[in-house]
Amino acid sequence: MENLIRYGERFFDELEIAVYRSRDVSASVELNEISMASTRGGAVTVIRGIKNRRLGLAIIDSDEPERVKKAIDLAREMARLNSPDEKWVSLPDPGKYREAPKPNYELKEASPDKLVEMLVRGIKLAREKDPNAVVAGGEGGVSWREERIVNSHGVDVSQEGGAAFLFLELVGRKGDVVTPGIFDFDARRDLNLDVEGIVEKAVQKVKWAYSVKASKNEEVPVILGPWAIAGLFSYALLPAFSGERLVKETTPLAGRIGERIASETLTMYDDPFHELSIQPVIADGEGVPTRKNVLIENGTFRGFVWDNYWAKVHGTESTGNGKRDLRSGGISIGFHNVVIEKGKRSLEDMIAEIDRGYFVDGFQGAHSSNPDNGNFAVTANPAFLIEDGEVKGASVFLMAGNVYDLLKEASEASREQTVIPFMTTMITPFVRFENVRIAGK
Amino acid sequence: MENLIRYGERFFDELEIAVYRSRDVSASVELNEISMASTRGGAVTVIRGIKNRRLGLAIIDSDEPERVKKAIDLAREMARLNSPDEKWVSLPDPGKYREAPKPNYELKEASPDKLVEMLVRGIKLAREKDPNAVVAGGEGGVSWREERIVNSHGVDVSQEGGAAFLFLELVGRKGDVVTPGIFDFDARRDLNLDVEGIVEKAVQKVKWAYSVKASKNEEVPVILGPWAIAGLFSYALLPAFSGERLVKETTPLAGRIGERIASETLTMYDDPFHELSIQPVIADGEGVPTRKNVLIENGTFRGFVWDNYWAKVHGTESTGNGKRDLRSGGISIGFHNVVIEKGKRSLEDMIAEIDRGYFVDGFQGAHSSNPDNGNFAVTANPAFLIEDGEVKGASVFLMAGNVYDLLKEASEASREQTVIPFMTTMITPFVRFENVRIAGK
Repeated sequence: MENLIRYGERFFDELEIAVYRSRDVSASVELNEISMASTRGGAVTVIRGIKNRRLGLAIIDSDEPERVKKAIDLAREMARLNSPDEKWVSLPDPGKYREAPKPNYELKEASPDKLVEMLVRGIKLAREKDPNAVVAGGEGGVSWREERIVNSHGVDVSQEGGAAFLFLELVGRKGDVVTPGIFDFDARRDLNLDVEGIVEKAVQKVKWAYSVKASKNEEVPVILGPWAIAGLFSYALLPAFSGERLVKETTPLAGRIGERIASETLTMYDDPFHELSIQPVIADGEGVPTRKNVLIENGTFRGFVWDNYWAKVHGTESTGNGKRDLRSGGISIGFHNVVIEKGKRSLEDMIAEIDRGYFVDGFQGAHSSNPDNGNFAVTANPAFLIEDGEVKGASVFLMAGNVYDLLKEASEASREQTVIPFMTTMITPFVRFENVRIAGK
Repeated sequence: MENLIRYGERFFDELEIAVYRSRDVSASVELNEISMASTRGGAVTVIRGIKNRRLGLAIIDSDEPERVKKAIDLAREMARLNSPDEKWVSLPDPGKYREAPKPNYELKEASPDKLVEMLVRGIKLAREKDPNAVVAGGEGGVSWREERIVNSHGVDVSQEGGAAFLFLELVGRKGDVVTPGIFDFDARRDLNLDVEGIVEKAVQKVKWAYSVKASKNEEVPVILGPWAIAGLFSYALLPAFSGERLVKETTPLAGRIGERIASETLTMYDDPFHELSIQPVIADGEGVPTRKNVLIENGTFRGFVWDNYWAKVHGTESTGNGKRDLRSGGISIGFHNVVIEKGKRSLEDMIAEIDRGYFVDGFQGAHSSNPDNGNFAVTANPAFLIEDGEVKGASVFLMAGNVYDLLKEASEASREQTVIPFMTTMITPFVRFENVRIAGK
């Protein structure tokens, strides 16, 4: 690798070589049957070279030195053709990394058989517990990543690790009622995925959904589940913490550090080292050490997150939030593992206290939220009506509003926390919000 | 390969091995600069084995015999765990293939340099022709595919070939006006991509868009461009021709073969052998010979398209429309190359005849169309107001309706035809529709 850096330094002022090796095994379910099992893997090398502030970026799916050399040549040709980026400062310098948790090497060798077995067990269990339920879909996966990031300033960091996940989607049919797709999932750094827990929670929700309740226009307390929170926040809220948006003036959080933007209940941070994290990385996509970055502390906005480029443009330091997109090769600001702090009581206790309100398991349409101002308009589905402290049945309704208004109404977080391994990876409890205006459907 | 089939036949009643090798080079543009160049490739093998009507499906990213053997073992384990599919009949038998056009081996060896050069030329040209325009995005790509499909009934077919594409997205800024993103593209089976033509057409549309015209509620003639047609038809219309939907009773075309469903102007068929086709395959994803399947002939609905599974369930024959999804390994009904027959006059002549109407270049929101009934609600953007036979400026408006009502109003197709290489691959002219109700925005 050192030779390749030296080779590239003949033409480039600065140079970064990032090598990613991956292995992914997975198995899927469709309509109660295993539909597919697969094993995939490979290597990708990304070259980022800068000459007179002109950037060249090349990607190849190999880590063979001869092919990497060719990619360096291609990046050089690109840099020559591009115009200078006057905002460019420099690639990152070396930093001090935290000590990584020991990777679980069991995940490196995982076979799809194991996932097939878990899925079959899940299907069997679901159909035993509810003969009217169909496992409409589902997937189990184990991914393993090895990466090394080296640059001409002396950064040289290697890391490896893996994670496993499993989810099932159940649909119940009883009489005239067909429930919406009901999801539940687990993700962790070992293969002890909680198949029984997934089925139990999903079957419970399907059971609730057999009773269909009309929704109406009203203002009520609403408990949002982890999947609903991850969906809404990924699109409406989290982008606002990006330093790039601060520079480009497209975040409503500009100039508001230290201000109360949420109720005291809410503490939220990004930290790949949280105990439930499925990706405890010590370095981000450009080799900058990761750390715990507090976003909201007891309701108070604490700061933005940065990658190397936008931090230097703004005159600050990277917070270790440069994420590499292996499709485009580029680095952009992102999160490793957003945690919402948990509370003391169970979801059950929280539901028991509501006279009339809703529990929202998932949102549809969250991707069309506007992170420039926090506005959203989503369909709550699956969602459940709560009356007299009990779930009475499933409802569908619209929720339109502003995510910052919602944050101020957070009144309690559950003690259960769930890892949502899709979209932005989040670890979040169920959260109760007061005075949520909903539109019946 | 024969050995592997024999190995698999020890446990399976029927077995299919499909091997895909690919090489993709691409280069991208962001904000007037080349942002990335990449080379990727690899092999994927899909095993489909059936034992007592129980299906096992395994995927590996390799074509090494030892790894394929392991995938066969995995498929066997899956088949054992699954319940029988009572609808299963059999894998396809051998058929007679057409003679394939000679592949263009220049595409097999294409380097990303060539694409970078074309994109740089496109950027330079666009900025010369319109100094207010920014090339906001774009991509050039060359893909090469080699595949072999073998099954235990004697199917054994190999094919190879490649295609190249290039698109640019321009945004113009003039005074207070920022135009929407304006796209144009080219795709073909050689590297002579028409960079100049792409830029010329895109710059023309940007020029039109500098003048912003309010839209209002009215009923007018509308010319839909190839990109708009491909977007709308991919989601609202084409799924209705699927035999699976006939069996499942989710197509409004059930029982209507021979009926007039469109104006006489409209003839549409699926044929990978059309002269502009970018993928002239002789066999579909399960080795069934492809052919020309007429969907609509002078307005009359001519028939459904089928893969092997649904054709046999329905008691008919596959039309060679089994498409393999390399993510899931599965076969589903799809199209190779949907062609709408061209007309005699140019787009310019068609525009010259309109007193008041619109030319729609692209639709947003087409993916939420309902193929069960053909209903759609889309935003026309970019779209252009035509008055007195001339384009006067850009407008945005809503179009909501039913695609079958629209088909009856088709009155003319242009002589220009464009290949749209995204979504469903289509080759389509500009088409004029009468009495289109639009809602101003």
